[in-house]
Amino acid sequence: MENCVFCGIISGHVPGTKVAEDDLTLTFMDINPAADGHMLVIPKFHSEDLLEIDAEDLTAVTLSAQRAAKAAMSELGADGVNLLNCCKAPAWQTVFHFHLHVIPRYTDKTKDRLTLPWRPGIGERPAVLEELGARLRSGLS
Amino acid sequence: MENCVFCGIISGHVPGTKVAEDDLTLTFMDINPAADGHMLVIPKFHSEDLLEIDAEDLTAVTLSAQRAAKAAMSELGADGVNLLNCCKAPAWQTVFHFHLHVIPRYTDKTKDRLTLPWRPGIGERPAVLEELGARLRSGLS
Repeated sequence: MENCVFCGIISGHVPGTKVAEDDLTLTFMDINPAADGHMLVIPKFHSEDLLEIDAEDLTAVTLSAQRAAKAAMSELGADGVNLLNCCKAPAWQTVFHFHLHVIPRYTDKTKDRLTLPWRPGIGERPAVLEELGARLRSGLS
Repeated sequence: MENCVFCGIISGHVPGTKVAEDDLTLTFMDINPAADGHMLVIPKFHSEDLLEIDAEDLTAVTLSAQRAAKAAMSELGADGVNLLNCCKAPAWQTVFHFHLHVIPRYTDKTKDRLTLPWRPGIGERPAVLEELGARLRSGLS
């Protein structure tokens, strides 16, 4: 797609540090890493986000991300990995070509600049969970 | 697996608010939601984490999460969605049965308690990206 920076990386018109590639996906280094070895996995076929990407591309991206996570552990000595997808601007999406972040994590904080995105253990009233759950269930049945 | 709380939810021995289920996956409400409608998608077959889960289960979980994301948009009026996997304790994993967070996001901050997990735009020296990229590439080829 014209004017899409990630399509530009795929075609080679935009520079990028590629680390893996197959028929459907490309894995490359995030230029603003949250931790050492932060990668992005994208489908070669342009999809805007998680709502738009088709099952075949989503599957391929996810399996490429799993391979990238294993490489982060074995090659960089990571102590863990996060996968993150941001769908739509209110969820922090800034490039509108689907991408899955693969973020190696380290107990060594000189390599890892992440902070927990929410406060754990705040709990929720069971009645609220049930009410929201019922609405979601109706959309999924 | 014995003593696994998520296996307990699957079997019914541990209470949980289920929202969707198929042969391979279960989707239920997170009891400590980061935002209204926060769900977890798990494989029914116990795998500890992203490194251990097999391709079939990982694919099934991801496609169930996409369906859950669409339901969050249509049924709860979410403005976006995050998918998050935490693999190993240094990446914030606390239950060691693979799970994918599906977190609806809202511009209405009374429904949304997330903060960005890293500072964007800090950049990285190209030589560092190239060096880390080369190590990852060797693990992926």
